[in-house]
Parts: sequence; C-alpha cells; structure tokens
Amino acid sequence: MKHFEAPILDWNYATQQDWCCEHSLSQSPIDIETATLEPMMDTGKIQLTYSRTVDAVFDTGSAIQGIATGTANINNRFFNLQQFHFHTHSEHKVDGKTCDAELHFVHEAQNGRLAVLGVFLVEGRHNETLQTLLDAVNTNQSIHNVYLYDLLPRISDYYHYLGSLTTPPLTENVEWYLFKETVEISHKQLQILRNYHANNCRHTQPLNGRKVLFKSFNKKS
Amino acid sequence: MKHFEAPILDWNYATQQDWCCEHSLSQSPIDIETATLEPMMDTGKIQLTYSRTVDAVFDTGSAIQGIATGTANINNRFFNLQQFHFHTHSEHKVDGKTCDAELHFVHEAQNGRLAVLGVFLVEGRHNETLQTLLDAVNTNQSIHNVYLYDLLPRISDYYHYLGSLTTPPLTENVEWYLFKETVEISHKQLQILRNYHANNCRHTQPLNGRKVLFKSFNKKS
Repeated sequence: MKHFEAPILDWNYATQQDWCCEHSLSQSPIDIETATLEPMMDTGKIQLTYSRTVDAVFDTGSAIQGIATGTANINNRFFNLQQFHFHTHSEHKVDGKTCDAELHFVHEAQNGRLAVLGVFLVEGRHNETLQTLLDAVNTNQSIHNVYLYDLLPRISDYYHYLGSLTTPPLTENVEWYLFKETVEISHKQLQILRNYHANNCRHTQPLNGRKVLFKSFNKKS
Repeated sequence: MKHFEAPILDWNYATQQDWCCEHSLSQSPIDIETATLEPMMDTGKIQLTYSRTVDAVFDTGSAIQGIATGTANINNRFFNLQQFHFHTHSEHKVDGKTCDAELHFVHEAQNGRLAVLGVFLVEGRHNETLQTLLDAVNTNQSIHNVYLYDLLPRISDYYHYLGSLTTPPLTENVEWYLFKETVEISHKQLQILRNYHANNCRHTQPLNGRKVLFKSFNKKS
C-alpha cells in the first residue's frame, strides 16, 4: 500500500518557532482558462438583497468606490455587502482576453471570510445606474433609488475559485464569483472611469494548482 | 462624511511587482476565549456520511493517521473526508486549558477549501472504535465495520473560526469546527497515543482580530 507510507518530514515540533507559512500561492486576479473548468457540484445559488441607497461614491485614489449595505446569500451562507468598486480594464482574464472594465462587489461573512462578486463590463449601451453613480463621485452625497442589480447580468452563471484581494494587503481570504455574462456600459461612461484610473489593474497571478469551477443554472446544459 | 474619505495609499500599480501578501495572521491552533464568542448566525448544520471502512492506520512520523472516505455537508457545502489524525495533548485550548488529546477529521471541498472537525478527547471510559484503530496502526491492513461516529460527541455544538493547517506548510485555507463536548478515551489508550507522539502539538497562535463563533443547536439557549 505504497501511497499510505509516511511522508518524509523536514520539520519537527522542537523547532516550530522556525516554521514558515506557505503563502502567495492563492493570489488574484487570474486568467480563467475555460477548457479546464470543472462543473461546480454545490447548489451554488446567489441571492442578493442590496439597499437602494448608496451612502457615498468617491475616488479612493486607486478606484472609484461606492458604499452601500445589503446581504448576499452565497451557496447558503450570509455575507454583508461592504463596498463596490471599478477597475479599468478588467483584472481577470478569460482565455487570455481582458474586458473593458470589471466591477467588484465586496462582501464579508460573520466569520471574516470575504466574497467578491465580479462583473465584466463591456462597451455598449448606456447604463443608467452607473451614470447615477458617476454623477455622485466625490459629491459627499448619499444617493437614493439606485438599482444596483442593473449592474449585474441577468444570467447568473459564474466562474468560482479561491483567491485574494487584488490590492495590498492581498489577503488570501477571498471567494471569487465572476459572472460569465457581461454588462454593457457606454463609451462615454468607460471614458469617465478611465479618466479617474486608466489602468488600476493587478497583473494576473499563477493558478498554482487551484481549481476553477463553473456554475451553470441552465438545467439543459 | 469623514469615514468615507480615501485612505492614504502606500502602494501604486506601477510598482506592483514589489507588493507583499499579508500572511501568518490567521494561523492555528488558537486559545478559544469563551467570554468573547459570538453566536453563529448561519444555520451551520454538519451532516457526516463516513465510510465504515478505514483503508489504513499508520504513524506518519508526526501523528497517528487514518485514511477513510466519506462526506461532510458543512453549512450546506460538501466536503470530502481526506484523513483523520491525533494530537496529544490537544492543540487548541479553551480558556487557556488543554485537553488530553485532539482528533482532527480533515476534509476538502471541490474548490480546494479545507474544513477540519476537531474533537477534544479526555481520559475516561475505553473507546472501542479508537481501540480498533490503535490495534491496526502500521499493520498495512484495511479495517471494516469501524463506526467513526463513536469518536464524535453526541451534541454537535461547536466553536468556529478561520485558520490554518497546524503543521507545515501551515496553509491558511482551513475552516475550523471544534466540538464543545468532549469524547472519552481510556488512560491506557491515551498512553498508547502518547507512546507514539508525546507532544505533537503546535503552540497556540495569536487571533489577530479574528472572530470565533459559537454554534448552539439547543433551541432553548
């Protein structure tokens, strides 16, 4: 029974103060290779209940960010919305290709786990919700009747993997859920985002053996 | 709106090759301070379906370990049992106190996330299942009709936090679920475990602001 033999140890309990924590092996963003995706077995449902009030929209110096409250029930666990922000161009790639922009909804669970819902934005039709947000940047005003769901795709199929924050401190505590379907924003809106931050994107990071799952809610597929 | 002001950045995208990943802040084991526990809001149910065959029991050089298959549905997500192993004394503490031993059932989800169910073992009555396992150590024999549930407490209330493996590479990818109720094993059985490894325990690690949750299934509490 060869595979049950004990591993060769290069550590012992007497010198544990010298043990090192493995790290930087589960970083984000990544290039999602669609040929290697594995169908996600968990039910994987995502249910969002976001407030229609956005408390503020401002330039953090690294991204345009909005503050809003709400909950995400992700694969049967509750996360609280912390903030959302934009990257131009996209940080994640799909089969080597970037999108025009990427929107991250950042959530935190009671145990401290982070979950980010990522939306790929592409140049196309004007998006009214985005315009409301852009008009409010740095105004120090809260805005009402904002329908954040208009910044999410209608089909919620997603790519899922375990990764990190994409800005320092790059903490490896993040469940990523990236929607396959893109959302359109206008050329003019894209230019406004680019005028704030033309390239606020971290380079893609090595997968280091991590699995990327794909959740499809299409019962026929 | 003071708290929405942009943070002071000490990094920029032009020098991202120099960014460092925050790490070693979410290590295990920890000392669980019961006065600071927060009631867990998620349903948090754990349902185990473990095989009655243990494929092998052997000394890895750092612990007595058993290999068995099975699934754990933890807070509505599926994890596969990888192995279980023993530490003498316990690695986790509760209010500064160690137990005589600690049993770890290690599981992995489809996305690579690890979940460890921890059982505090205390000196008391003989445990038949443990004896079957101890009799099989290093025999290179698989054993049948093993009722692993006898090594789990009857009341499944647990402490939960996000941590790491407790041996190198100390990967910070582990959800910990530590049962409050202890399981008894005999003085003689404890001595056998100690004869293999008298002190295969990592020191407790700083919490660094992490929350420790408590899940109670007693509807009256």
